[in-house]
Amino acid sequence: MSHPPGTEQRFCQIALMPSGHKGKVAYGTDLLTAARELGVELESICGGRQTCGKCQISVEEGHFPKHGITSGSTHLSPQTELEKEYDREHPLNGRRLACAALVKGDVLITVPEESQAHKQIIAKAATDRVIEVAPAVRQVYIEVEPARLGDPRGDWERLAKALEDQWGLSDLEIDAKTLPTIQSVLRQGNFSVTATIWGNNKILRLQPGFQEGLYGLAIDVGSTTVVVHLCDLRTGQVVATQSAMNPQVRYGEDLMSRISYANSEPQGLQRMNRLIIQTLNELAEKATNIVDLSNQDVTDVVIVGNTVMHHILLGIHPKQLGEAPFALATFSAVDLNARDIGLTLHPACQVHILPLIAGHVGADNVGVMLAETPGEQDEISLVVDVGTNAEIVLGDRTQVLVASSPTGPAFEGAQITHGQRAAPGAIERVRIDRETLDPRVQVIGYPEWIRPLAGEATDNALLATGICGSGIVEAVAEMFLAGIINSRGHYVTTAAEITPRIRMDGRTAEYVLVDKEFSATGSPIVITQNDIRAIQLAKAALYAGAKLLMDHRGVDHVDRVVLAGAFGTFISPFHAMVLGLIPDCDLNKVVAVGNAAGDGARLALLNHDLRLKAVRLARSANYIETPLETAFQDEFVAALDLPHAVHPFPHLAEFLPEQVDQNKPGSRNRRRSRFVSKI
Amino acid sequence: MSHPPGTEQRFCQIALMPSGHKGKVAYGTDLLTAARELGVELESICGGRQTCGKCQISVEEGHFPKHGITSGSTHLSPQTELEKEYDREHPLNGRRLACAALVKGDVLITVPEESQAHKQIIAKAATDRVIEVAPAVRQVYIEVEPARLGDPRGDWERLAKALEDQWGLSDLEIDAKTLPTIQSVLRQGNFSVTATIWGNNKILRLQPGFQEGLYGLAIDVGSTTVVVHLCDLRTGQVVATQSAMNPQVRYGEDLMSRISYANSEPQGLQRMNRLIIQTLNELAEKATNIVDLSNQDVTDVVIVGNTVMHHILLGIHPKQLGEAPFALATFSAVDLNARDIGLTLHPACQVHILPLIAGHVGADNVGVMLAETPGEQDEISLVVDVGTNAEIVLGDRTQVLVASSPTGPAFEGAQITHGQRAAPGAIERVRIDRETLDPRVQVIGYPEWIRPLAGEATDNALLATGICGSGIVEAVAEMFLAGIINSRGHYVTTAAEITPRIRMDGRTAEYVLVDKEFSATGSPIVITQNDIRAIQLAKAALYAGAKLLMDHRGVDHVDRVVLAGAFGTFISPFHAMVLGLIPDCDLNKVVAVGNAAGDGARLALLNHDLRLKAVRLARSANYIETPLETAFQDEFVAALDLPHAVHPFPHLAEFLPEQVDQNKPGSRNRRRSRFVSKI
Repeated sequence: MSHPPGTEQRFCQIALMPSGHKGKVAYGTDLLTAARELGVELESICGGRQTCGKCQISVEEGHFPKHGITSGSTHLSPQTELEKEYDREHPLNGRRLACAALVKGDVLITVPEESQAHKQIIAKAATDRVIEVAPAVRQVYIEVEPARLGDPRGDWERLAKALEDQWGLSDLEIDAKTLPTIQSVLRQGNFSVTATIWGNNKILRLQPGFQEGLYGLAIDVGSTTVVVHLCDLRTGQVVATQSAMNPQVRYGEDLMSRISYANSEPQGLQRMNRLIIQTLNELAEKATNIVDLSNQDVTDVVIVGNTVMHHILLGIHPKQLGEAPFALATFSAVDLNARDIGLTLHPACQVHILPLIAGHVGADNVGVMLAETPGEQDEISLVVDVGTNAEIVLGDRTQVLVASSPTGPAFEGAQITHGQRAAPGAIERVRIDRETLDPRVQVIGYPEWIRPLAGEATDNALLATGICGSGIVEAVAEMFLAGIINSRGHYVTTAAEITPRIRMDGRTAEYVLVDKEFSATGSPIVITQNDIRAIQLAKAALYAGAKLLMDHRGVDHVDRVVLAGAFGTFISPFHAMVLGLIPDCDLNKVVAVGNAAGDGARLALLNHDLRLKAVRLARSANYIETPLETAFQDEFVAALDLPHAVHPFPHLAEFLPEQVDQNKPGSRNRRRSRFVSKI
Repeated sequence: MSHPPGTEQRFCQIALMPSGHKGKVAYGTDLLTAARELGVELESICGGRQTCGKCQISVEEGHFPKHGITSGSTHLSPQTELEKEYDREHPLNGRRLACAALVKGDVLITVPEESQAHKQIIAKAATDRVIEVAPAVRQVYIEVEPARLGDPRGDWERLAKALEDQWGLSDLEIDAKTLPTIQSVLRQGNFSVTATIWGNNKILRLQPGFQEGLYGLAIDVGSTTVVVHLCDLRTGQVVATQSAMNPQVRYGEDLMSRISYANSEPQGLQRMNRLIIQTLNELAEKATNIVDLSNQDVTDVVIVGNTVMHHILLGIHPKQLGEAPFALATFSAVDLNARDIGLTLHPACQVHILPLIAGHVGADNVGVMLAETPGEQDEISLVVDVGTNAEIVLGDRTQVLVASSPTGPAFEGAQITHGQRAAPGAIERVRIDRETLDPRVQVIGYPEWIRPLAGEATDNALLATGICGSGIVEAVAEMFLAGIINSRGHYVTTAAEITPRIRMDGRTAEYVLVDKEFSATGSPIVITQNDIRAIQLAKAALYAGAKLLMDHRGVDHVDRVVLAGAFGTFISPFHAMVLGLIPDCDLNKVVAVGNAAGDGARLALLNHDLRLKAVRLARSANYIETPLETAFQDEFVAALDLPHAVHPFPHLAEFLPEQVDQNKPGSRNRRRSRFVSKI
């Protein structure tokens, strides 16, 4: 019940839904303050001036026995003039501005999601998680005392005073590039101003009057692909994504060749550094333009990348990463001004780069750990991010182990006769008929499976240009399943008797995957013995790395396999396991999570505390240096077979060809795999 | 006496000269540590490694009854191998390295000046003062654990560990531009490195191995002249000075015309900003080259300048400084990276700009206060820095008052018919014969007084180009003393009867100072009635400002007058007082201190604590806004006369012409001034 001041009841009962916080507050308290006193933070940019409309709430009518509250709109002070004005311009539809409504009696309040200060987003990861949107930057609106004769203080001192008085923010500094804007901004806004503040200690941006809009970039600098996500830092949403090939590719597909280029060319590092910065600037420009913003609107950036990309981006020569002991310049998280590395965003924009783990395990991997949190699961997860190096994480709540394995670029289509990057025209999926040994393929950019055989009807638009990583993995696995190659990876003589697609001479052998009629080059696309060998070497390195961590952990199986990265998204878990690329696991527990490194960057962009968590993850991960381990070499040799005999693959048993004497090609009985019916 | 360890005496008596610190230290302590324990900090860059040779000391031989010590070189451990090696390469001449010498008995030690950690310099000011050399940057030598396989830490983490272990420095950060150098520097120096550290919290520079050399710039950005002092931050000495005209002069001689240019030209601010930065870079380049250094060797900078120069330098539009209420963007001291304002010094070089006081009282004035410390004197000093605006400080221990007075540019030779800046060819001194009314002048660049009269023998090389500020002040004062003009500043008709050099017609009058034969232009150099009026207006503004502060303070005289700035250095105190430019004072107590603003910058460069003191001075000074004071207008009008009747000038009485009826020119009796005999 409402009681006027001066009578005996001086406190009112308040309950806040949906959080359920409740308690007593003094009669006459405004609801913004009341909610804060009861532990519920409401949105507010104007700081209680009844102008920003962020703190809208609904007051419920009726008796609520569970809370012991009889609530109603009459238990709040009537609308103020300012509130009525806001209501006319932006209809409140019965809601109140919490900062305008004074408590005059017991009320039960519903706080709509958009008024909750720390909004939550669902992180799109293998394990869905709820992330609080609490970025490193925020906006506050302030009204500054105008300049007057007789007061020698500068605009900055009066603005700082207003921040202290109106928001309790003291000891702030202002970026050297932002100070020159203060006088015109203050006067444009008639001495009211919206400040963008980083980490509660530095003013990055000043805008006249009341302004909304806070944007950041989450950037994943891959050796091959660069991805930029433009995020709305108030809602946590990605509002635009742009990607491009890493222009450094022209100086080498893989990391070692970039290092070599920097070592041999006097201007090599500077050139690669300029190229990547230029690309990031262009992607930022495109992403912001899509949503009618400009680069100037970006005030915070989080970047991940492998150690070589990290160093080149910062202008650090990658020489040391190319030779033992693979010393990093730093493994700490780096905070710097975007302008200091040439990024043309807001002049005071901040950059945070996630920490590194070791010479071969970079910030991208920390991003993956942040997104996938293997160290917070009960199950033992193996997280694999395949690129030129495979970064491997094995862990659960007990312990997290990390290693890097030198898979080489075969999984990215390099060092493969007709290999290419995943791009329109690339063969990405392959099936081989177990009887006829004829192929079917799927090509990026074309929706149908096709039979790329001479004489088959063909859509003129469709010509395959090569085979990408996921295609080569499936092709080799399918060739094994169809009996074209044996578990040593050798072509089987008897198979060549079934089809002329297998071409063997004394020294070499190859399988014609695509006849020349379906090939953009006019020549057939083939899988050679060398291609198979390259894939075997790559998969053995990956497997050996995983096995090394499993040995360190003392387990002989994993509960889950998480495939991160673009490659992981497109390969078939079944075929990966047939190849022995990943250890045995329930196929239902093999999940692809896409660009988890980029997701990690986005999380660290949206939630400042996750940057600290990333440092904890990086420092607590137990790094195993594979070149130091003789066990790695043994595992590597043992893992060359398909899938190989050393460690069992019980989950594959029903799909695999019968075990045969691998030294006698052609002596095997093929059987129709149950798997064939699944596609 | 020396006692081996294990016997009863475990402590030795140490005395350190010249400071006189003494006390007991444990037997076996090295002298570097012993001195520190007794409160005497010795120089050391190598951190006690017996390699830098900074901590040299002498041990005295004999009995010293005053200290109760029998001292001798045998009371120290013998020379170490490293010390012997140092001695061979850099003869110690009997001195010891304190870090190598272990205390084995009582010793009396002399610490030579160069081994004292905080050297002292004598500040060259009106009042000589002793300044401790304790800059914001320092160098430390460290040996870093090399990288090795199995240790994932980066070079930076190992370097930070070494700084903590070897120097107790923790939580340091490294500049984003310096991080990229860490790997090659460490390896060039075989993992030993010299770090330049700013404020004990940021690494600015890394150099391989052991290095010495720490340099900074003290910069005074004047409206007309820019001065750069290159200082050795170890010794406190100025090792090179370069100056140039402020190139912004092309957009206006005085501050108001610079502001107008920025207001009217869209690119005006950027243009003026670029010009001054470019000039500073060129001066830094020249200064460093003189002593075989480069811009890269400069790691710290302190800048002073008036408020308009300050704002333009920082890229802040000076618009607000041109109109009431003359709001500054900030009046705080500014710390920033040199690169952020375009200075091409060491990439991580820091800049500190002294605070401002108010819209018209800038960092140059704070520099003057820092150098002259009027607030620490028993006498009441009036410190006057004359430029386009005159900054005026009045104070003693009780209180310091500050004002700015709009003198206009007349004292700089502008708005004067034949006025010019002080440069070769300018007339800087003037005497007029009291009987003949013939002039003598001194011209900058020519050592002799000359009589610039038609018919006089002339050196062909000598032609006057115009008259500079000090010249016009002396000319007007001499014309008054010689009776050519009266105390109202009007030409006296009877004087024109004595010499044809005074040319009068009904409306105008002028005095021919230099006949055309001695003039570079081929025309005579004259002083017109308007010129006299301009000087009267300027001196009245200056005097009124000083008087305003005296009134605020409640005093009718000052004990000392300190003339700061180039103008102050060249004008004759006597003539300044005859003009009434400064209030009456014992002429022996009028001192010129030269570029005191630049001296203040140098002090703040050499001693970090003085930067904090500058802030205290700026904030505690009592600023009087002259335009707010109606008293100022009254004083101004009253001060137009020469010197004027309102406030007496007893110290001038014997020199002045007899008081005459100023409304009747020509009715005055001239008398020979005693002053004439003094020149």
